Amino acid sequence: MYTAEILCLGNELLMGVTINTNAAYLGEKLTFLGFEVRRSTSVRDDLELASQCLKEILERHPNVLIITGGLGPTYDDIQMEVVSKALSLPLVESSKALKLIEESYAVIGLKLTPERRKMANLPKGSDILNNTVGSAPGCKITYNETEIFCLPGVPTEMKDIFERNIYPYLSDKYKIARYEKQFIVMNCRESELAPFINKVKKLNPSVYIKSHPQFVGREGITIHIACSGEKCENRVNQIKDELIRLFTTNLNKIRIKEIEV
Amino acid sequence: MYTAEILCLGNELLMGVTINTNAAYLGEKLTFLGFEVRRSTSVRDDLELASQCLKEILERHPNVLIITGGLGPTYDDIQMEVVSKALSLPLVESSKALKLIEESYAVIGLKLTPERRKMANLPKGSDILNNTVGSAPGCKITYNETEIFCLPGVPTEMKDIFERNIYPYLSDKYKIARYEKQFIVMNCRESELAPFINKVKKLNPSVYIKSHPQFVGREGITIHIACSGEKCENRVNQIKDELIRLFTTNLNKIRIKEIEV
Repeated sequence: MYTAEILCLGNELLMGVTINTNAAYLGEKLTFLGFEVRRSTSVRDDLELASQCLKEILERHPNVLIITGGLGPTYDDIQMEVVSKALSLPLVESSKALKLIEESYAVIGLKLTPERRKMANLPKGSDILNNTVGSAPGCKITYNETEIFCLPGVPTEMKDIFERNIYPYLSDKYKIARYEKQFIVMNCRESELAPFINKVKKLNPSVYIKSHPQFVGREGITIHIACSGEKCENRVNQIKDELIRLFTTNLNKIRIKEIEV
Repeated sequence: MYTAEILCLGNELLMGVTINTNAAYLGEKLTFLGFEVRRSTSVRDDLELASQCLKEILERHPNVLIITGGLGPTYDDIQMEVVSKALSLPLVESSKALKLIEESYAVIGLKLTPERRKMANLPKGSDILNNTVGSAPGCKITYNETEIFCLPGVPTEMKDIFERNIYPYLSDKYKIARYEKQFIVMNCRESELAPFINKVKKLNPSVYIKSHPQFVGREGITIHIACSGEKCENRVNQIKDELIRLFTTNLNKIRIKEIEV
């Protein structure tokens, strides 16, 4: 089982000014790649609080940690300082990063300023992840057994770096098999399904089986089955069939709607 | 300074099946009430992982902790077990909670089952928070100096309990003054504003001053100023005026758009 965590920096997340769609996006992608995402944490733009939080994550030794938010030109863009402090690594100006930043501003006719130049300061030993949408480059750094990916918080920039660099890298390196199915049960309540789900779950503790009473754009109770590892496709399909059999033989008036994930 | 944390239980949050709007809603409300929301954590429906996470939160001694998700009839609705384990408090069946649950099902012509009855098991010494939208009641329990509020994860139910019970309670008990202003700067880049924001921020370290390059439904750079405590209205207005003065005297072509929060 490979594990992952997500750390999002930004007062705006904690103040509810911004809904954290980055965590959901990354959670979905990492899960799809076969990782168990154990925790997702949002923390304030505060060097002490955020570096303490990062240290705690590293003590839990996830295989992968994605950090978003706080890469940019303003005083509160402190992700690199947070990483530097938590990992006890100095920040050094990367000439490669500086060149990328300079070029990204030159395209729009702007010059380097001290604030823009600051974005080239990366933790010593990190690899640059080029940002083709915005100006602040991301970076990758390994600490003990954890691969840390530092990304911007602006969703278009975060996704750009993740999709071009991180997804292919993780997919190629970890090669984890995963399979999932969903179906919908109409005309019943979640609590009527619960005893049958509980029964099947007890026989399959490592499989994710969950009922969702509210699911965006869907009526009915969505049943979600997912599993990673060898033979997962067979297991998921067997569990789906068994649940549908239990529901239809025990509950009156229900209707099953199969859906493609 | 009163502090708050948010803890959300649910594999669906970590798998990106659900975007965590609860954390944003609670963050906004708690911030509005004057709390500094320090961390928001999402964790899996796993008794060990989640109770460990809860213990860590309690060691940071926030004044208020809101927990959402995992109150319900299914096997993975384990919030009460998580609280029980982390606080070393037994779960006891509350006759008051049982009556509320029985009534909520009676309205729709359903009887108690073991799965529904489980929702009446609350940590010893907790106060019930009635759920008028769904069936699972919430509860409030104090641990050392932290007031813990246990709420369902379904947003309509969570909001129902929060708005009817918790918001008025916290507002009345803590009475924290808070004030905020926003305005928009058009025709400039965030990095052009940064040196002026940095300058003002250094003189006002306890005031939240932030530029947002992307803000749902708004063009331009949104500047957000917020402050809690005495005389906060004066301070926020002074800072707003000073920033507008600095921007307009130093940057060409920009345009300021004042907005109501």
